[in-house]
Formats: sequence, structure tokens, C-alpha cells
Amino acid sequence: MNMPEKRVETRIDPYVDVYANRTRGLKASAVRALFAVANRPEVVSLAGGMPNITDLPLDVLGTVIGDLIKARGPQIMNYGGAQGEERIREQICEVMALEGVEGSPDDLIISCGSQQALDLVTRTFVDPGDVILAEAPSYVGALGTFAAYQAKVVQVAMDEDGIIPEAFRAATVAARAAGRQVKFLYTIPNFNNPSGILMSMERRRQLLAAAKELDVLIIEDNPYGLLSIDQPPQPAIRSMDSEHVIYLGSFSKTFAPGFRVGWALAPQPVLKKLVLAQESATLCPPVFSQFAISEYLSNWDWRGQVDQFRSMYRERRDSMLRGLDDHMPPGTTWTKPTGGFFVWLTLPEGFDSDQLSARATSHRVAYVPGTAFFADGLGSRNMRLSYCFPTPERIYEGTRRLGETLREEMELRTTFGLVGSRPGLPGDGKNHD
Amino acid sequence: MNMPEKRVETRIDPYVDVYANRTRGLKASAVRALFAVANRPEVVSLAGGMPNITDLPLDVLGTVIGDLIKARGPQIMNYGGAQGEERIREQICEVMALEGVEGSPDDLIISCGSQQALDLVTRTFVDPGDVILAEAPSYVGALGTFAAYQAKVVQVAMDEDGIIPEAFRAATVAARAAGRQVKFLYTIPNFNNPSGILMSMERRRQLLAAAKELDVLIIEDNPYGLLSIDQPPQPAIRSMDSEHVIYLGSFSKTFAPGFRVGWALAPQPVLKKLVLAQESATLCPPVFSQFAISEYLSNWDWRGQVDQFRSMYRERRDSMLRGLDDHMPPGTTWTKPTGGFFVWLTLPEGFDSDQLSARATSHRVAYVPGTAFFADGLGSRNMRLSYCFPTPERIYEGTRRLGETLREEMELRTTFGLVGSRPGLPGDGKNHD
Repeated sequence: MNMPEKRVETRIDPYVDVYANRTRGLKASAVRALFAVANRPEVVSLAGGMPNITDLPLDVLGTVIGDLIKARGPQIMNYGGAQGEERIREQICEVMALEGVEGSPDDLIISCGSQQALDLVTRTFVDPGDVILAEAPSYVGALGTFAAYQAKVVQVAMDEDGIIPEAFRAATVAARAAGRQVKFLYTIPNFNNPSGILMSMERRRQLLAAAKELDVLIIEDNPYGLLSIDQPPQPAIRSMDSEHVIYLGSFSKTFAPGFRVGWALAPQPVLKKLVLAQESATLCPPVFSQFAISEYLSNWDWRGQVDQFRSMYRERRDSMLRGLDDHMPPGTTWTKPTGGFFVWLTLPEGFDSDQLSARATSHRVAYVPGTAFFADGLGSRNMRLSYCFPTPERIYEGTRRLGETLREEMELRTTFGLVGSRPGLPGDGKNHD
Repeated sequence: MNMPEKRVETRIDPYVDVYANRTRGLKASAVRALFAVANRPEVVSLAGGMPNITDLPLDVLGTVIGDLIKARGPQIMNYGGAQGEERIREQICEVMALEGVEGSPDDLIISCGSQQALDLVTRTFVDPGDVILAEAPSYVGALGTFAAYQAKVVQVAMDEDGIIPEAFRAATVAARAAGRQVKFLYTIPNFNNPSGILMSMERRRQLLAAAKELDVLIIEDNPYGLLSIDQPPQPAIRSMDSEHVIYLGSFSKTFAPGFRVGWALAPQPVLKKLVLAQESATLCPPVFSQFAISEYLSNWDWRGQVDQFRSMYRERRDSMLRGLDDHMPPGTTWTKPTGGFFVWLTLPEGFDSDQLSARATSHRVAYVPGTAFFADGLGSRNMRLSYCFPTPERIYEGTRRLGETLREEMELRTTFGLVGSRPGLPGDGKNHD
């Protein structure tokens, strides 16, 4: 890929001796570089995770937020508490109740998006070298945060019902045998990013039982739970236990990401640490945003709005699955998500989604290569396809272009033998894969 | 002090073995506990640092922000870039130009309040045990962030012209001789929080020369620079050098804190690290807030608004200084700030501002004890008095109550000899100070 972010740095960084050790694990995300390409208008981007929020009631929002400023500006535009505003914490408890979570506003902390909640949790628990368990594959942004705290991430096998409890157990035992502390298991049980897999209820119970037995905390990250397309939302793991689970939530997918309001629900002793961490990190999470969302929740049928989002994403999900059925060459498989934003696709043997990326761009379609979702380089036969943002027609067209890309690759492979091919690099066509 | 936050914890924290080492340095801030008392309506709080934003044009703001949502909702309420939005970065360059800073939008990163910029900078540079130099006294929130990264804070003496270059030099040499890395010097040159001291131009030049010679980065934190009351704003240290200075700014005092929009201006290699850190910390800083502030800056005479704030704070500063002149007992001294929010008061010998706090509360006045602004327990004869939030009349009344408090304490000390006194604790009156 020929991307501006990847230009060769010819100057030596004069600050290189002054940086903290933790910066060594941070590298410019390949995903970010990819987005520069994916955002070109002629490209159908199946890469991004941006929700489609065009259906929000903009007139209502503009009016209620404008009026709020006029009526209560000096309060809602000033500093707030590090834990977040009380009213929105109460409202969030109502939101979480839809997934069976009984939580108190006192056990909730607001964060600058749930990404920041994850950052605060990691900051609170993880010393360099500590082990964090996560699903294989797992959210690229979480892996980035864990790397920033110099954690050792061990990814645990999933099947179609979610993370496999025996694999969780074995990974914990192995890490401890190697003298490492296992700080927590990070899971996205609902429509896992990137695989789209929904953890079954039985699996949730088994996983929780194992976590209690092993004395490992579960971090339950749940941005997509309410965007369940084919069935009512499942009860959260947190609905079954309040002591071994820290629950992370977000308004980014059920309302809008730009306000940057997420949260963590945690046992009281942990919550106190999170509040201290928030104080040192930001003084307080976005205050105006919290009041704005409170006002939206009070003045609009937000449950109906979420239902509308579900219909909208159902149509897009259907369009993607139909497109994949119509256009994928034999040997390609993919998950059939019942909610969330993502399909996880597995290429025929010998294909490499990183290498294929440039060819896909020339066919005007973009995806995220699977390696982004592993800490250890796995996933080269996978790609994440997201159906959240483009229209159903564009999504279908995207799968058509992806099919074209794959077939072209296959033809090349047939012509030249089993090769990894990178257009424009002479000689590449002759290297074995 | 008898505050709810300080209640004795009788339950052992079951998570105590799982927390990261860095949490040991985090303790509930005495300042936060204090605010619970200070916020009672009958108390004149000279404790808080909340700006008075009642003069903002609420009708205009409500209208332009409401209209913005209606016109561009789907864009301004979605995810944005980790570096922040381009338009506001351009506008911030115009803001900084008022203090002589020539910066490029490419070298700017937006943060969730400038507190978060400080967090990102510390995260990027500081390993446990590294030395950070700061003014003596320095901002309590910065000390909290430094503690969260397990830095060793060494505070450097100031005089009425700001930090003393020779003391900076000596502290650096001593830390290095002790085998430690000095990562940066943190300074608030304009109306230092808590002392109110303005660093002279000559001092800025000397400090910068010393920093270059010693090869120590300067973190210039400048939330109050434009709130210069008696003279035009001074050129920033960053206006004289772009390679040894990382500049932190904020809209919290010149506009409103609740949007949580601050920034860092840094040399390009450092900026890249900060963007990566921001990505892992929050994905992106508050997007809606950035558009809202952009809209305010485009639609309102913000320079005129800052001038109005300056007049408003001038009146309050004058009221405080007049009150202190009228009410402080002999032996008490204080700084005469020419901008910002704070006066730094020094009590007569033998007084202890922590101990005096409860007595002040019974006289219905609150301040922040000086020890909050030192990492090592110094400052017990000092207090920070802020004139930013209460009305001029309340400020004057606050100084009267403070004078009453001090005189009562003096009488007790005269009656019982030189004692530290804490009302309600029997026997205390007989302990020597």
C-alpha cells in the first residue's frame, strides 16, 4: 500500500532517548492508514466502524440542546464531578436494565467514550508484563490500549458460541505457571468486534463460573448489545454477577459517538480507584455532552429510536449477507451475525488479506485485514467487513467488488501457481506464499 | 475535618492484590473532600477554581449550536480524528497568536481538557521513578497526574518573578547525579496556580536558556495567559522556541470548561506519539465540543468576550485585595496577582492552614490549604484564595470571615500559648505546634 502515513522518516527523532518505555509498544495503526484510502468517495468502505446516525431526530436535538444552553448554560458548561453527572448515571441504569443489569448510579463512572473507560480500567489493574486475556479475534482499539500499558495479551479461542471456557481456563493456568498475573479477561459477548459472534447464554454462565473459580475479573465490553437484530437483547454477564464483572457501556452506537460518553459499572472499591484515575486523566468527563444526552433521553422515545436503528442495520446486514452469497468464490466462509456491525470473513487457504488490500483498493472496496485483531500476527486469512455505514446498495456493490478482487487474485494464482501477489512490485509474482 | 469522604473503611478491599502498582500513589484528594463543604450555600468559597461564565452570550450560543446540530448533525455527532478537527486547530493557532506563538495546526492535538493533554504528555515521557521538575508551589491536578505515572516530583523555588533558573539548574544536576532522568520542567508561567505569580520576560529567557543548555524539555501550561488583568498578555515561552517547549492550552477559562477542549502544541515527533496515545486513551477527543467551540469562535467576538472576562475578574481581584488589606491580621502576607484566578497567602509563623480549615468552615469561609500544592508536605503556612467564582461582595465578605477566623485563632494561641488548635478534639489545645 502506498499511503502517506507510511512515508519513510529520514530524520532521526531527537526526543528518542526521553520517551517512556511504554511508547515502544505504540505504533501507528495500520487501520488508521487504511481509513485514508477507505474514505475516498469512489471507494466502498466496508472498513470503518462509524455508526449511521442520519436517522437521529436532528430538529428535536437542535431545539432541546439549544434551549438547554439558553436555560442552564452556566451550569452545563462548567466543570463537573470526576464520576460524572448524577442524572445521566441514573438514566444509564435504565438503559442497562434492558439487558438485565441491576446497577446503582453510585457504582457508575462516566468516561470520554467507553474507550476511555477501558483505558482507566487498564490503568487501574495492569502493570507491565501482566497478562490480559481476550477473545481471538478482539477489538483493535482494546489491543492498542493494552499495548499502551505494556500488557501481555493472550488471546483465547472462540467458536460460534463465543469464547471457549476450557481455553480460558487453560490460558489462565498456563500464564500463572509462567509466573505471570492474569489481571482480567476482556470480552465483547454481544456481536464481538470483529467476528460478529454472539456469546450464547450457556457460554455466559460457563465463562462466569470459570472466572469465579479462577478468581479472574471479567471486563464485559458491550457497545452493541442493544443492536440485536434477530432477537431481543441477551442478558449481560453482569446481570448474573456484580463482583467479578466490570461492565463497559457506551452511547456511541445507540445514540451518537461524537459526544464521547461511555461508562463503567464496577464494584465499589474498584469504582473509587476509577474515579481517582479519571480525576488525574481529565478532571471530569465531558460535562456538556452528559447534559445533552440526558436531555435527549428525557425528550425523545430513545427506545423507539434504538428499534429504528435495529431495522436500519438489519437491512444492511441482510444486504451484506446476500452480497456475500452472490459474489464470494468457493472456499470463502463468513459469520452470520445476528446483531452489531461486523461480518468476519475467512479466505480460501493461501490467501493473505494484508497483501490483498492494495488489489481491493484498485477495485474500489476496502476492508480491515484480520491481523489487526490479533496481538500476535494471526488472522492473515481473515477480514472484517462492516455493514454499519454505507447504504444497503453500496454494501451489496462492495461485496461485488470484493468478489471481483478475489476472483482476479485466484486467476493470478492459477496462472502463476500458488503465489502471494502484490501488484506493481516486480518479482513478487514469483515468490511462493 | 469531619468529611464524609474520609470515613474509615472497615471492609477490606477484595481487589487489593489485583491493582496496578501505580494506584498506590493515588489518594482521594483532600481538595475534593473540601469542595463538599465549600459548596454549601452559606459558605463563601475561596477554594474552587471554577470560572464565572455567566456572562457568556447564552442566547447566541444556544441558537448557533442548535442550528449547527440541525444542519450538520450526522457529521458533528460522529467519530472524529484522534488529533482533533482541522478547523478548530486552525482557530486555536489564532488564539495562541495573541501570545506570540506561531504554531501550525499540524503540530496541535486536541485533548479532553488540558488536563488530558498533560496526562498524554506524562504518559509519553515518564517511566516510574523519573524526575519531573515543577514550581514550588504547583497545580494540584498536575501533581496528581504525575503521581499516577509514579514520577518523582522535585519542586523548584520561585520568587516574585517566577521560577529561579539557578534552582532549576541545581535540581536538574542533583537529580542526574542521583542517577535519575529528568523528563521535563512543568511550569505555569502566567499567574501560576496557586501562587498567582507571573513569570517575568527576563526570567522566561533565562529559563529557556537553561533548559536548552541542560537539554530539559519545558511543559508550558497556560490556561490563564489571556486573563491578564493589568497589562497585555506576555509572550509565551513557546513564542521563543519550538523545539524545547511543549505548550498546553485550554478553552476552560477563556470560554467554558464543560466542553472539555484543551490542546497541546508539540514538536512533530512528539506530536505523533501524542496522537497515538490519544487514540489508545479515547479514540478521539470530544467531537461535538470541538464543532461547538468552532461555531462560537466564528460567530461571536470572542476577543471582546475575553476582554469582558478580564474586566470581570479585575473587579473580583480588586475586591479580594481590598478585603485582605482591610481584614488580615499583622504578620500575614499575600501575592498581588496581575491576572488569573488566585492569591497565595502566607500565615504568621506557627499557623497551620490544614488545622485552621475546620475553624474557617465554622466561620463560613473556605480555602485550599497550601499543602495541596506540594508533593512533599510543605506549604502548611499557606493557603490558596481564589477570586474567580463568587461575586465581588461575597469575596470581600469571605476575606472578612477569614480575618475573623485568624483573629480567633490568634486569641486562642495567646490564651493557651503557642498551640495548634483543632476545635472539638479534647486535648489538642495542649499539644505544641
